[in-house]
Order: sequence, then structure tokens, then C-alpha cells
Amino acid sequence: MRPMDPSRIEGLRLVIEVAATLAFALSGLLEAARRKLDAVGACVVAFLAAFGGGTLRDLLLDQRPFFWVRHVEYVWAVLVLSVLAMIVLRARHLALTERAILIPDALGLGLFAAAGTDMALGLGHPPLIAVLMGVVTGVFGGVLRDVVCNEIPNAFRDHRPYAVVAFIGGWLYVGLERLAVGADWALVITVVAIAAVRLLALARQWTLPRWRV
Amino acid sequence: MRPMDPSRIEGLRLVIEVAATLAFALSGLLEAARRKLDAVGACVVAFLAAFGGGTLRDLLLDQRPFFWVRHVEYVWAVLVLSVLAMIVLRARHLALTERAILIPDALGLGLFAAAGTDMALGLGHPPLIAVLMGVVTGVFGGVLRDVVCNEIPNAFRDHRPYAVVAFIGGWLYVGLERLAVGADWALVITVVAIAAVRLLALARQWTLPRWRV
Amino acid sequence: MRPMDPSRIEGLRLVIEVAATLAFALSGLLEAARRKLDAVGACVVAFLAAFGGGTLRDLLLDQRPFFWVRHVEYVWAVLVLSVLAMIVLRARHLALTERAILIPDALGLGLFAAAGTDMALGLGHPPLIAVLMGVVTGVFGGVLRDVVCNEIPNAFRDHRPYAVVAFIGGWLYVGLERLAVGADWALVITVVAIAAVRLLALARQWTLPRWRV
Repeated sequence: MRPMDPSRIEGLRLVIEVAATLAFALSGLLEAARRKLDAVGACVVAFLAAFGGGTLRDLLLDQRPFFWVRHVEYVWAVLVLSVLAMIVLRARHLALTERAILIPDALGLGLFAAAGTDMALGLGHPPLIAVLMGVVTGVFGGVLRDVVCNEIPNAFRDHRPYAVVAFIGGWLYVGLERLAVGADWALVITVVAIAAVRLLALARQWTLPRWRV
Repeated sequence: MRPMDPSRIEGLRLVIEVAATLAFALSGLLEAARRKLDAVGACVVAFLAAFGGGTLRDLLLDQRPFFWVRHVEYVWAVLVLSVLAMIVLRARHLALTERAILIPDALGLGLFAAAGTDMALGLGHPPLIAVLMGVVTGVFGGVLRDVVCNEIPNAFRDHRPYAVVAFIGGWLYVGLERLAVGADWALVITVVAIAAVRLLALARQWTLPRWRV
Repeated sequence: MRPMDPSRIEGLRLVIEVAATLAFALSGLLEAARRKLDAVGACVVAFLAAFGGGTLRDLLLDQRPFFWVRHVEYVWAVLVLSVLAMIVLRARHLALTERAILIPDALGLGLFAAAGTDMALGLGHPPLIAVLMGVVTGVFGGVLRDVVCNEIPNAFRDHRPYAVVAFIGGWLYVGLERLAVGADWALVITVVAIAAVRLLALARQWTLPRWRV
């Protein structure tokens, strides 16, 4: 395919990255509000939700410096967001916020899964490992958020397709990369596919198979 | 002592490694079934139980690539096992499976404790650190499994000798290594000793001392 | 300022380090006793509380060998302390121990926050990252202790200023370092300031702002 305009794709990527990071942080703040954490707990949980997945991926792949060390402005943004949330958030806002973050969260799942897969492929890892690193990037922020809040991670028990969409999307990315469609197109197609399937799964209330134990 | 036949010891080691990895993964799947996790949660918990201990050891010792990155066929095996378990496992199988994995689990505790101790000694760490790395390898997969399932880790509260057997077995390995009996014999003796003591402790219902708080 | 007598500052630092490490380990043992963990659980939780924060910081900053690998005598000390606690500790000692560790804990918070900030600044990280590494060093031992004991971390929900004092103290250290007052004076001033504010906050029962959700 024709290569995309580089500044355009970079701009689009940045917009999704910022929106998704703030959506992930907000998911942490909602959880912190529900569990009545204090201001410190709220900041930490927001931080874990926003950066935990990418940090765990970088630890596993031995990549430094971390994303949030290179882009310290994201850390400031999450700190400011946490303080604002503590001032502004009221009980009646919780459900509303939860709905508002569904779309940036789905786009973020796509972006982070594609970026994680791409990074691991670039380091020469086998496809399955690369796809799992994409899943870790997209999903484990929420897992760490829930573990610290003393809950079984939502991603592991709500029977909604989330990690599984990232897993399939990761294989799509691997396939597109093999077809040499170009990294930009592979990224765009994977993000759109993951976000679309995730939102469709929510709208149609698709569920994962259940244990028959 | 006379060195062992290298192909024989490697074959034996591989058999124990495969059986123990699957037993550890099954312990995760049993826990996932009990806690009603979904398919994603089941896979993740099986994976944590099977590879968590070795991965944490490698993170602490700064060793890459991880075991499961080098042997991606183990990851496939755990994925297939998880899917099979979700299809096949019924309530009446839980207790049976739990009993069936006791022996490969005990052998795995021995193998992973000896292998972890050996790796840390080889990197020049002091004996206590090496022994603790052996304990981490054998025990922390189960710890991560239980933390993610929102339980106090079984290894920390069931008063059964498990980590403590790995700890003593690690010192046995350090001693055998000092006596220059050869890595193969040290491995075999340590694995047999740890597995035998662990199974004896279960059969005789030995318990650790209790707090008198 | 005039440089301090190097042997004096080193001696003082060592005294605080030992006292704080034992106080952190004791906080783990108290928690283990309350949650009725077994002997293995007690040792692990004491170990996590004592060394978890520094280890997590070193993992994030990619620094090896860890503190407890270089100073294996601390590991022995925590093991001995754990065994002693299981023999000696009775229900009537719990509240007493909790009060006795407040002062070494506050000094340790100061020392570990200053040391973590200093290490990250020395590696060329931006001030905010350095300050957060100080907070991680001082606070995340207790966080890991509570996560393993299946509780929401105390530092995230008791509304007492703890991490926040380390955060502000970290900025004080950054400022003193910029003013070129010398690393020794910066350390002493930061430790005293953090410990004093922490103890004052406890005495006056200052609390963090609450969610109005």
C-alpha cells in the first residue's frame, strides 16, 4: 500500500495515546473512588492503570527507559487529573464517566496491543511472545489496578471479550507485518479492528464461554 | 562420583520439567475454576502458576530471555491445556485433579529449587541468595496465582512444609556442589530429597509451628 | 556549608538504615501475626516489607545487584528477627510493637526517600521521576506486604500523610541538591524534615482530603 503521510499518522497516534492514557487513568480513579482510597491511593491506582501495562512489558522485554520516564509530561498529566477528579467527581458522575471512557479505552486497547506486539517483533521475539506482549501492554494496567484494590481483576472474570480481542488483534498485526503492508497501515488497521470488535462485543453483549464446573 | 550418562539425565530432566510445568498450570486452572474466572483469567492464572516463579527469579537475577521465551512450545502447551480444562473439567474432577498433581508438583518443586539455586550460584551470588532464588523459582508461581485470585497465598498460611522443604533442599544442593559431587548428581539427589520430604510431610500431615498470638 | 565528617555521617546513616530495616520487617511480622500466616509467610512478608521498596526501585531503575544481595547480612537479620518474633510475640505485644516502630519507621521513610531520590538523580532522571523513585523506595515495601496479605495497602487508604510526606521531602532533596549544599547535608536535612513532619502528622492526627463521592 501507499505509505501514509508521516506527520498525519504521528499526530493521530499521539491523539489516541493521550486520550487512551487519560481514559486508563480515569478507570483507576473510578475504582479508587468506589473503594474509598485516599488521595495517595487514587494517584497510585491512576498511575498503575495508565502506565502499568507498558511498564510490565518493558520490564519483561528489558527495555529502558520506560515510556513515562521519557515522557514525564504524562506523569504530570495523570497527577493533575487525579487531583481534579478528587475535587470534581461526585457519585452521580461515576456511571457517566464509566460510559465516557469506553471509546478511548477501546482505542487504547488497540493502540497499546499493536505497539506492544510491534516492539517485541522488532526485538526478534517469536510471534506468540510478541502477541502476548501486546496483550500485557493493553490489559495489565487494569490488572494491577484491580490487584492493588484487592479485587480479582475485572479482565479475568467479567466474561467480556477484552484481552481476547487484543490477542486476536495481535495476530492480525503479525499477519499484516508479514504481508509487508507497512508499519503505519498495519498499526491503523489493527487499532481500528481491535476497537471496533471491542465496542461491538460490548454493544451486542457477547460473552466468553463459561466453566461448566 | 562417576558422571552420569548426559543424554539420560537430560531426558529425565525434560520429563520432570514438562510434568511439573503442566502440574503447576493445572493448579492454576483448578484455582481459576473455583473462583469462576473466565477463559482469559484461566489462561493467565495457569500461565502465572507455571512460569511465574522462574520469571520472577530471572527478573531478580537479570537473566534474559526468559525460559518461556526460549521455549515457546511450553506457552502453547499451557494455552492448549487451559482450553482443554475449560471443556473437560467438571466439579467432580476437582478433588481428583488436585490429588493427581501432588507428585509432579513435588518433583517440580525439587527441580525448580535446584535449578534456581544452581543458576544463582553460577552467577556468583552468596549461598543464602542462591537458596532463596531456588525457593522463589519453586514457590512464587503459586504465590502470584493466589494473589491474582485475591487470596492470601496458600504457601504462606497452610502450615504445610513446602517453601521450607525447598529452602532446606537448596542448602543440600549448595553442600553437594561444595563437595564437588558433580552438577548432575547434585541435581538428582536434591530433586529426590525435596520431593521425598514434601510427599512424606503430606502423608504424615506435618505442620509448621504456629503463632501463639 | 562545611562538609560533614564522613565517618560520622556514614555511621549515622548505618544506624538509621539498620533500625529502619528492622522496623519495616517488624511491620510485616505484625501483619503476618494478625493474618495468622505460617512461619514461611511471616518470613516472606517481613522480607517484602523490609526490602520490597528498594528492590522495586532497583528493578525500575535497572540497578543490580540489589541492596540485600550486596548486604546479605540484612537477610540473615530479617530471618532471625522473624524466628524470634514467632517465639516471643504475644497478642499483648502487638499494640506495643506498633508504637515502638513509629520512630524508626519515620526515620526510615526519610532515609529511603532521600536515598531513592538521590540514586535516580545520579542516573540523570528528571526531578519528578527521581522524587517518585524516592516514594517507591520508602512506601512500596509496605504496599507489597499488604497486597500479599490480601488487603488494600494501608498507605493508600488510611488518609494519614505518609507517601505524601516522602513526596514533598523528595522535592526538598532536589532543591537542596540544586543549591549545592552537599550530598551529606541534603541527606541529613531531608531525613530530619520527613521524619519530623511524619511524626507531627501522627501526633496531630492530620488527615488527607477525602473523596466527596
